[in-house]
Amino acid sequence: MNNFEFKNPTKIIFGKGSIEKLSNEIPKDAKVLMLYGGGSIKKNGIYDQVKSALVNMEIIEFGGIPANPEYAVLMQALEVIKEQNITYLLAVGGGSVIDGTKFLSAAALFEGDTPWDILAKNIKTEKGMPFGTVLTLPATGSEMNSGAVITRKETKEKLSMGGPGLFPVFSILDPQVITSIPERQLANGLTDAFTHVLEQYMTYPIDAKLQDRFAESILQTLIEVAPQVIKDPTDYKAASDFMWSCTMALNGLIQKGVPGDWAVHAIGHELTAMFDIDHARTLAVIAPSHYKFNFEAKKDKLAQYAERVWHITEGSTDDKARAAIDKTVAFFHDLGIDTKLSDYTKAYEGTAETISKRFTEREWLGLGEHKSLTPDMVEEVVKMAY
Amino acid sequence: MNNFEFKNPTKIIFGKGSIEKLSNEIPKDAKVLMLYGGGSIKKNGIYDQVKSALVNMEIIEFGGIPANPEYAVLMQALEVIKEQNITYLLAVGGGSVIDGTKFLSAAALFEGDTPWDILAKNIKTEKGMPFGTVLTLPATGSEMNSGAVITRKETKEKLSMGGPGLFPVFSILDPQVITSIPERQLANGLTDAFTHVLEQYMTYPIDAKLQDRFAESILQTLIEVAPQVIKDPTDYKAASDFMWSCTMALNGLIQKGVPGDWAVHAIGHELTAMFDIDHARTLAVIAPSHYKFNFEAKKDKLAQYAERVWHITEGSTDDKARAAIDKTVAFFHDLGIDTKLSDYTKAYEGTAETISKRFTEREWLGLGEHKSLTPDMVEEVVKMAY
Repeated sequence: MNNFEFKNPTKIIFGKGSIEKLSNEIPKDAKVLMLYGGGSIKKNGIYDQVKSALVNMEIIEFGGIPANPEYAVLMQALEVIKEQNITYLLAVGGGSVIDGTKFLSAAALFEGDTPWDILAKNIKTEKGMPFGTVLTLPATGSEMNSGAVITRKETKEKLSMGGPGLFPVFSILDPQVITSIPERQLANGLTDAFTHVLEQYMTYPIDAKLQDRFAESILQTLIEVAPQVIKDPTDYKAASDFMWSCTMALNGLIQKGVPGDWAVHAIGHELTAMFDIDHARTLAVIAPSHYKFNFEAKKDKLAQYAERVWHITEGSTDDKARAAIDKTVAFFHDLGIDTKLSDYTKAYEGTAETISKRFTEREWLGLGEHKSLTPDMVEEVVKMAY
Repeated sequence: MNNFEFKNPTKIIFGKGSIEKLSNEIPKDAKVLMLYGGGSIKKNGIYDQVKSALVNMEIIEFGGIPANPEYAVLMQALEVIKEQNITYLLAVGGGSVIDGTKFLSAAALFEGDTPWDILAKNIKTEKGMPFGTVLTLPATGSEMNSGAVITRKETKEKLSMGGPGLFPVFSILDPQVITSIPERQLANGLTDAFTHVLEQYMTYPIDAKLQDRFAESILQTLIEVAPQVIKDPTDYKAASDFMWSCTMALNGLIQKGVPGDWAVHAIGHELTAMFDIDHARTLAVIAPSHYKFNFEAKKDKLAQYAERVWHITEGSTDDKARAAIDKTVAFFHDLGIDTKLSDYTKAYEGTAETISKRFTEREWLGLGEHKSLTPDMVEEVVKMAY
């Protein structure tokens, strides 16, 4: 096991009816900016639940944060924060709204020239404006971690940020929110969480026994509940297992003391930036090719995954490893998630070269758990995903 | 899954050489009281490592905190805290030293009549004096939770305390400390952590899929590493898996959203108070009888444990459940841990009646996950453990 540090101070309030408890968590004298997305919370009743929980507080609202939270929109929200002397942020939404709120938490207290530097120069935020979240879509784990990904459309960039100051103070997780999520979003959430675990698990093996088993536990649980969640989002039991699994998939715990990969995300982000493909779907496109391309380096862990998660016990290490990739692809297909780039766009030719070129133009730090993937290799991975 | 709240702000610093990082974690202007036990840290080098990490700080020491931390001794430490205007506590030890430090953290800021009330009236501590820990013995999980158990010899009482103010600010976990732990203590640590998981898992099933699998992951890992840890405590890999498993066994995570039992601990504490039997060993004495006595209520979960942890796939639910109890007993025996009260004392006759009487004389809130165990039932459980 590698040395590690772990601290996650976010308070989770989980369960039926937990949105009601909101007012206990926000200081009485706070001036709150409530942030949300395209307005689905007004249709599904979550907006009303939040407003009624906070009936005695002064709340200013900022809606319209898009999926892949967009820098220009967030800069408008930042102006509201400054003009209105906001002291507390409340994200009501999924990963995009929460990530956008994290950017605002950092930007509100940022003392540099332009908040864009937080992203462009990857400045770690030690202290942000305090914020809480009401999660409306289980998927990204953003509700219990300190990272965020922000998009800037004008430059087609999608960049990461984070720091110990960006953990939500609290996050409210009521699995009942799942009842009104469209199937497409549920499938995305399942795929996103599943791939988060793979990124932290599918590396060279270092046999960190507990971390491996926790990762496998999340994968097994997602596989088990996925059909139930898709078939009947009102199944509260399945919804709770799903929601808690998504949070645990990316709250830092399973990545501690082990190598991490994250190449699938880095390449996937480019596909979203280029074609506006849903984040989760880009992961399902890239992951299988990535594992095939890096087969020799990853086959031992793939075989362990085959045995423990998919119960594949026959054959050689190579056989099991290959079967595990096939099972993963089939899992995505069962969710209605396509796994080839050509399923999403007819204009896929040249994508690999474009991405490789973009990577070459940036400061290249390498990708994968050994940081050994070059832009040329990425080009191959993307071609395999056509 | 039941509704739950989860927050655990303790910072974990895990790995080889992590004691060196101590000075980064304690405020420069703190006046520190360093607490430790019987002095083994002076023989195994941990004392020197701590002192050298804190060479530029003002440190006052208080050694001699006994196993099952004793109220009268802690009251002497409390006097030192007050006389010396201590502002920060540092526990260097195992669960007993850390639990004692938690009591002091609470008592130092307590405004009631007597600190005994914290225990006797079970007063939750919302804010304690800040403290960190350097863990020298993996076992209790106290390094990453907010609970403590304190003993008062004069009344033969062993009482629990806790509260959100009693999480360590940080805990340093260097698996190298295991090299100098005597086999008896290693066996105790393994048994203690294993039983902690059982208390949070071996209840009526509510099929919280992730919590169950996480609990099973810890049990599997402890079973796998136990022989290695006992055979060669210098095996760093096994030591790290062991150490992290003990912490995860009782840091709150696996108990969230599920019922908990804790009858084994409640009864076991009485055996320690009466006969001074090592805490972990009392758990190994009581757990098998408890599961046999409450077989009907627990057999479904016992059978799940049989299948997933012990790979017992043959037979009926009852068969598997019984086999799982036998496997558990055999696991304790392999560690050199006796599982019958008569192995520890010749004066066992009458113990069941004494414990039952003690329970009857206290305010009785019930034991077990349904709080349905009566003192009479406890009497039967203890008799089965003779």
